[in-house]
Amino acid sequence: MRPAVVDAVISPKGSLSVLSRAEVGKLLDASQGELYRLFRSCTLAVLNSGTDLDDGKELLERYPDFDIRVVPVQRGVQLALRNAPAEAFVDGEMIQGIREHVFAVLRDILYVSERIIGNPAFDLDTSEGTTDAVFHILRNAGVLRPTTQPRLVVCWGGHSIPREEYDYSKEVGYQLGLRGMDIGTGCGPGAMKGPMKGATIGHAKQRIVGGQYLGITEPGIIAAEAPNPIVNALVIMPDIEKRLEAFVRLAHGIVVFPGGVGTMEEILYLLGILLHPDNAEIPFPLILTGPTSARDYFARIDAFIADTLGASAQRRYRIIIDDPPQVAREMRAGIERVRAFRARRNDAYHFNWMLKIDRDFQQPFVPTHESMATLDLHKDQPPDRLAAHLRRAFSGVVAGNVKEDGIRAVETHGPFEIRGDGEILAAMDMLLADFVAQQRMKLPGKRYEPCYRLVR
Amino acid sequence: MRPAVVDAVISPKGSLSVLSRAEVGKLLDASQGELYRLFRSCTLAVLNSGTDLDDGKELLERYPDFDIRVVPVQRGVQLALRNAPAEAFVDGEMIQGIREHVFAVLRDILYVSERIIGNPAFDLDTSEGTTDAVFHILRNAGVLRPTTQPRLVVCWGGHSIPREEYDYSKEVGYQLGLRGMDIGTGCGPGAMKGPMKGATIGHAKQRIVGGQYLGITEPGIIAAEAPNPIVNALVIMPDIEKRLEAFVRLAHGIVVFPGGVGTMEEILYLLGILLHPDNAEIPFPLILTGPTSARDYFARIDAFIADTLGASAQRRYRIIIDDPPQVAREMRAGIERVRAFRARRNDAYHFNWMLKIDRDFQQPFVPTHESMATLDLHKDQPPDRLAAHLRRAFSGVVAGNVKEDGIRAVETHGPFEIRGDGEILAAMDMLLADFVAQQRMKLPGKRYEPCYRLVR
Amino acid sequence: MRPAVVDAVISPKGSLSVLSRAEVGKLLDASQGELYRLFRSCTLAVLNSGTDLDDGKELLERYPDFDIRVVPVQRGVQLALRNAPAEAFVDGEMIQGIREHVFAVLRDILYVSERIIGNPAFDLDTSEGTTDAVFHILRNAGVLRPTTQPRLVVCWGGHSIPREEYDYSKEVGYQLGLRGMDIGTGCGPGAMKGPMKGATIGHAKQRIVGGQYLGITEPGIIAAEAPNPIVNALVIMPDIEKRLEAFVRLAHGIVVFPGGVGTMEEILYLLGILLHPDNAEIPFPLILTGPTSARDYFARIDAFIADTLGASAQRRYRIIIDDPPQVAREMRAGIERVRAFRARRNDAYHFNWMLKIDRDFQQPFVPTHESMATLDLHKDQPPDRLAAHLRRAFSGVVAGNVKEDGIRAVETHGPFEIRGDGEILAAMDMLLADFVAQQRMKLPGKRYEPCYRLVR
Amino acid sequence: MRPAVVDAVISPKGSLSVLSRAEVGKLLDASQGELYRLFRSCTLAVLNSGTDLDDGKELLERYPDFDIRVVPVQRGVQLALRNAPAEAFVDGEMIQGIREHVFAVLRDILYVSERIIGNPAFDLDTSEGTTDAVFHILRNAGVLRPTTQPRLVVCWGGHSIPREEYDYSKEVGYQLGLRGMDIGTGCGPGAMKGPMKGATIGHAKQRIVGGQYLGITEPGIIAAEAPNPIVNALVIMPDIEKRLEAFVRLAHGIVVFPGGVGTMEEILYLLGILLHPDNAEIPFPLILTGPTSARDYFARIDAFIADTLGASAQRRYRIIIDDPPQVAREMRAGIERVRAFRARRNDAYHFNWMLKIDRDFQQPFVPTHESMATLDLHKDQPPDRLAAHLRRAFSGVVAGNVKEDGIRAVETHGPFEIRGDGEILAAMDMLLADFVAQQRMKLPGKRYEPCYRLVR
Repeated sequence: MRPAVVDAVISPKGSLSVLSRAEVGKLLDASQGELYRLFRSCTLAVLNSGTDLDDGKELLERYPDFDIRVVPVQRGVQLALRNAPAEAFVDGEMIQGIREHVFAVLRDILYVSERIIGNPAFDLDTSEGTTDAVFHILRNAGVLRPTTQPRLVVCWGGHSIPREEYDYSKEVGYQLGLRGMDIGTGCGPGAMKGPMKGATIGHAKQRIVGGQYLGITEPGIIAAEAPNPIVNALVIMPDIEKRLEAFVRLAHGIVVFPGGVGTMEEILYLLGILLHPDNAEIPFPLILTGPTSARDYFARIDAFIADTLGASAQRRYRIIIDDPPQVAREMRAGIERVRAFRARRNDAYHFNWMLKIDRDFQQPFVPTHESMATLDLHKDQPPDRLAAHLRRAFSGVVAGNVKEDGIRAVETHGPFEIRGDGEILAAMDMLLADFVAQQRMKLPGKRYEPCYRLVR
Repeated sequence: MRPAVVDAVISPKGSLSVLSRAEVGKLLDASQGELYRLFRSCTLAVLNSGTDLDDGKELLERYPDFDIRVVPVQRGVQLALRNAPAEAFVDGEMIQGIREHVFAVLRDILYVSERIIGNPAFDLDTSEGTTDAVFHILRNAGVLRPTTQPRLVVCWGGHSIPREEYDYSKEVGYQLGLRGMDIGTGCGPGAMKGPMKGATIGHAKQRIVGGQYLGITEPGIIAAEAPNPIVNALVIMPDIEKRLEAFVRLAHGIVVFPGGVGTMEEILYLLGILLHPDNAEIPFPLILTGPTSARDYFARIDAFIADTLGASAQRRYRIIIDDPPQVAREMRAGIERVRAFRARRNDAYHFNWMLKIDRDFQQPFVPTHESMATLDLHKDQPPDRLAAHLRRAFSGVVAGNVKEDGIRAVETHGPFEIRGDGEILAAMDMLLADFVAQQRMKLPGKRYEPCYRLVR
Repeated sequence: MRPAVVDAVISPKGSLSVLSRAEVGKLLDASQGELYRLFRSCTLAVLNSGTDLDDGKELLERYPDFDIRVVPVQRGVQLALRNAPAEAFVDGEMIQGIREHVFAVLRDILYVSERIIGNPAFDLDTSEGTTDAVFHILRNAGVLRPTTQPRLVVCWGGHSIPREEYDYSKEVGYQLGLRGMDIGTGCGPGAMKGPMKGATIGHAKQRIVGGQYLGITEPGIIAAEAPNPIVNALVIMPDIEKRLEAFVRLAHGIVVFPGGVGTMEEILYLLGILLHPDNAEIPFPLILTGPTSARDYFARIDAFIADTLGASAQRRYRIIIDDPPQVAREMRAGIERVRAFRARRNDAYHFNWMLKIDRDFQQPFVPTHESMATLDLHKDQPPDRLAAHLRRAFSGVVAGNVKEDGIRAVETHGPFEIRGDGEILAAMDMLLADFVAQQRMKLPGKRYEPCYRLVR
Repeated sequence: MRPAVVDAVISPKGSLSVLSRAEVGKLLDASQGELYRLFRSCTLAVLNSGTDLDDGKELLERYPDFDIRVVPVQRGVQLALRNAPAEAFVDGEMIQGIREHVFAVLRDILYVSERIIGNPAFDLDTSEGTTDAVFHILRNAGVLRPTTQPRLVVCWGGHSIPREEYDYSKEVGYQLGLRGMDIGTGCGPGAMKGPMKGATIGHAKQRIVGGQYLGITEPGIIAAEAPNPIVNALVIMPDIEKRLEAFVRLAHGIVVFPGGVGTMEEILYLLGILLHPDNAEIPFPLILTGPTSARDYFARIDAFIADTLGASAQRRYRIIIDDPPQVAREMRAGIERVRAFRARRNDAYHFNWMLKIDRDFQQPFVPTHESMATLDLHKDQPPDRLAAHLRRAFSGVVAGNVKEDGIRAVETHGPFEIRGDGEILAAMDMLLADFVAQQRMKLPGKRYEPCYRLVR
């Protein structure tokens, strides 16, 4: 059955509402030229946010006639959509939050392509240049708010989780919202949506107006994890590494809910950074939490980290089982330490400049059969270096599971091969086997076909 | 185990923030004199909103040391609470929404006692005087907002309903919220809370700020149906009849979810009014709705109405099963007819002055064994008169089930006796038996002891 | 030549926008019944604010066909005006500030007539009852704002003053505005308008939004001193005594500019209150100020006070000549003392409850030939009592100069006769002679016909 | 006597409040490197806005110890000032409006130096590139507001004018403000300040909040025409030509008050543009106006234009003498034509993209003895070309009168020589002689030393 579709013309608000003639010209080019494919697929993902479909390829195939064009008008531009998913509309009118997301997509894709890529001011081959680019993309998106009180809690976790875990993430968001905290996530359903919904109710009860619900995504993942319209500040970073850097530089604290490989990738990314010797003194609250049913899951992860990165990594997080108020209280206390630390060092609250992020964690990792096969998963290196390689391994598994290019590569050449120390591979094996068993690799109901092979 | 309690001092906002010396004096009296018992029990109910306890008597017994006093200060008054339920607080600070509710209780109890009762300007023995009193209480509470677009949907239904029905009411609220509509309910959990939560999410997605979540309660019911803190406009009407009149004069349309006897009382109240010949031309959208599992339930109600009030009553509502978007669309269309009608008649949008409400529906009905025994449940009267009597019968059952005085009366004198036409009593019997079977009379898990007896 | 007139229909904002049917009915009565004459003449004065005409009688004669009617509409009421002064309109549309003033007139006239007069809650025969009435009129008008920082400076002075003095009053207002202070005056041109205009510029430069420009008038004076549309909070008190009480209970400090007899009346009123033994400890900043050309004028007033009330009265004010920044600095310092004093005593910032105001200063003084002839202008009484009688003497002269009834009485019976101690009358004589010489009794260009005769 | 000075540290709002580390670094450089002189002198001019001093050289000499430094702090930067003019402060605290202006100076100087100069995206050698740069500077300054109703009236005229003309400009501003129009000027006193003050009062009476008071200046003129703190949107354009282009592209209509050579330069600039054949159809309301005393003055200008540019130029403006309401009404009608025209052509309201501005009017004209001597003041060219040359001639006279470089050049080499057709030079001679006679060349009280010599 063909899905219901709608045609519509929408107008922007914010930074796209006052444009120069040259900028309008570039927008017109963008809607016809090389950026068009990217813009179209990201927009389609945004419009699809109401549904359960989380596969970019399927999505593009479902709406083959979807079309979006930039129309120059009196006061800037409008967007004309044809054959757009009907779920984005209420009685023929696009949901306001989705409308904002469509223009956020346009804003960020253009900014990155026009101002970042090829701009000599940003040397993306250096750590400083990359961080500066991340900062400028975020500032251009209007999500950097000067504040006197840090309050952004980033929540990570699976987008496809059981009802019980979803409800738990909602309760944690509620408790955080009651305490005045804002929520940032990677968009999408599951553990990304729960905390925002909970915080919305918490903020409503506390009469907090203007709470920030920040979503940070990137073109490769947006189709699988479309932003919920509650997100009122959406940023599309150019790649997964800059998205992750945006998370850790913006967050005043991070909560990790149960998830799958993507979540594991995020944990390793963050631990790798926090284990860098330069970051030893920097406070960064990190809480892993879930309902009672997730106790074993986190115990397994804790064991994996103990086996690979060791006790120093374990000291960087706390595991709290089945106690949302306690999660919120600890997060609040942790963020107060962050505030005091930055005030003392005279550092900004809205961007964590002090955190040292090594090139390893910034360079886009393109998971190919070759790059996966040459990962350095050995123990004879500092834990932050090992974390970098482990992170890439899980990144590759995510790609093979849900990203267009990855899926195609595995379809063509068979599963990725991953090599390394026996001890490390054994730990990975147990972890991944658990994820499969707990149906944390794909949507329930589909049988999981592994996209990797561990080679000792 | 003794429940956790907290001491606190809270300051008002709004109309209680600028008081004359005489008014402060009266407030001090109120906190010591005869109003004190009322004020204390209503406040306790408000503070208890987070819990599942819905029995006023149990509540008062659980917090025997709870105390609240008015403290005069520089810029008006403060309230000092001792041994207040800990659920109302987050880390020692009262939830902002609950704080507003406490002062709403004070505001309304004082206004009714000082300005309405005994004020010759309000002749509560006449229909006009009563309506005027209702208007003034609502205006003093600040809930009458001059508007150019009617949008208040009142939602009725059970406060103790299965999860499936609760989720359905949330979905309907969400669909109404997406369409910009505000929600009014009788406070409490269940079908009263679901639509507000749903609308909060719907409003967030549409970026609607300032949506009204109106709760209308009265001292006799507030303990059983404590206002959820999402309610951002709370009114405590002096009795159940004025509360019902407030609902129908404020509502631009009403949605009824599955409930128990209380819901049936509300349906009969509304039909009794709408069947008055003077109201024949007045549009008033009324939708009965629920998930598929409620299909039989509404079919039974529909049959009961057909058997007692007849087809003219049935024409006043529509039953929609398992289709929240359709409920929202029909409600929007119905409200548009309301808007057009009032614009044509030059009547206010914020208060339905034109609706004729007979004295029968305004006079407080005190359910005693005598008043219940003398109800006129016969068919040889106009349907609106019969509806008045049927409404009282169900009102008595509600009292016997959940209200302090009613429970005590039944404990002392045995079940109420209800007399009338065999046909009517038979219809009642079937209906009430269904309610009992569906556990719609009390919280699940407790066995229902009937508080009435049908005498043919 | 007939003046230009305009017909218009205007809609209210604020408290008149949500009315009960009964209230609309009363408004309709008001526009036809006995209140109509009062409402019509006050409205005409408000509409005339742009012109130089300051004589109520002339004003009514100039617009004999002016008519204003209440029209009930859907959402409350509208006002239909016919033959209204064209100055109130810009290209056919009423100036927004004037529109607000027209409804303020309606609001206050109705409130006083409906809620104050004859309401047993307000015993206007007692000091407490009168103060309570003043409080309620001000609160109903929405001018009592709970605040954490007192900042209202009341400015008194002549409404008909030379350009140099007007410019000076503007400069003082500017310096007060730069320091964040709000302005209250008795409306009208001259020293009433200058400070507000100056403060508007001062607030603009400091980016202060929401500054209060409070005008307090009464029906007998409004025609002569129509409110400037800059006034964004207008109150029409029922008589001159309540207007004066409103000033001193609202003001956190008072600045007196050069004026005529009305200004002298105000100084005597305030000194009479401040000299009451109960008020000895209450801080109340009072500054008399003007440009260099006013040096002799204030010296004369200072001498008059020394001659009549003595040194204790002189200690209650400071005279500052030609130094607006110094006036503003001293006022700010004085208000800080007021703030500290009230905080210590736990008294409200928005209403000076502690100030003792004797019945003498509250009772409406109706200047007739008899009441003027029986004033007790003798030294053998406490200074606050003498101040009360002196105040009345000047009040009578104001009435004879500019108020309708007074003018007519003098036209009919000849000048008022004033009796008293030779020393006091001599001091008065010198003062009044100076006022005449300096053209401070009437608008320049008209010859002054004394309305009084001093009889030793 | 040394002027009073103050030390202070101030914090920014707006775009400077969220900076990257690299940007803070550049700011620190700016406060030490080559931009420092420019930043210091512009800031000093802004701080000096309260005084009458209008000579940049004198100003710099008066505050030799004035120093301003950028201080990096937690959330961006602060500015530390030493020996700043005391007039910018109220009791030790900088006036808020002036504080905003200091940061506007920093913002614009940096933006131009970092983003415009040397940025290949802006080809300042082309008309399009220059216009694009003007647009970006204005957008970066936040003065381009998307609007549905054009309302910006730019007011030109002398900064040193008689009291009568100043009062007249204030009255025109008042009438424009009453009609909801915003005001833009070149900053400074006189005809630049009057309309803003008037509009402030007009807006206050109409309860208009958020009116725009736009000041556009440039480094060479800012000392002589310091922005009044009422200006709530200040832009420092890099040179006089871009400043003039900003005026005509932003303005929906222009009012010209009496002034001196600078005003004449502005009139010629605008007529030169409007006379371009491409602009023949574009509506652009232009009104020359003043009090009765200015009648001859405008007659002379009208004659000069008739003699040089001819009747087609005269059709582009209207002269209105002594009728502020009429000026406001005509301006409103004219702006309505602008609105309709742009709506029809689908052009922006906030920037007049359609207006063709020739390179001649964009290229910075540096008045030297050589460039002044080679102006092409002959009639055998299209009127828009002649207007370009005439404009430069008057620009040179302005420079010689009030700009640092110009004054020095004339001090060194004697007056500029201006050559051309006898008829044109005769017309100039009469005009300039009149300006001298009317003391329109310099502040009253100083004798005017001509900085030019007409050579036939």
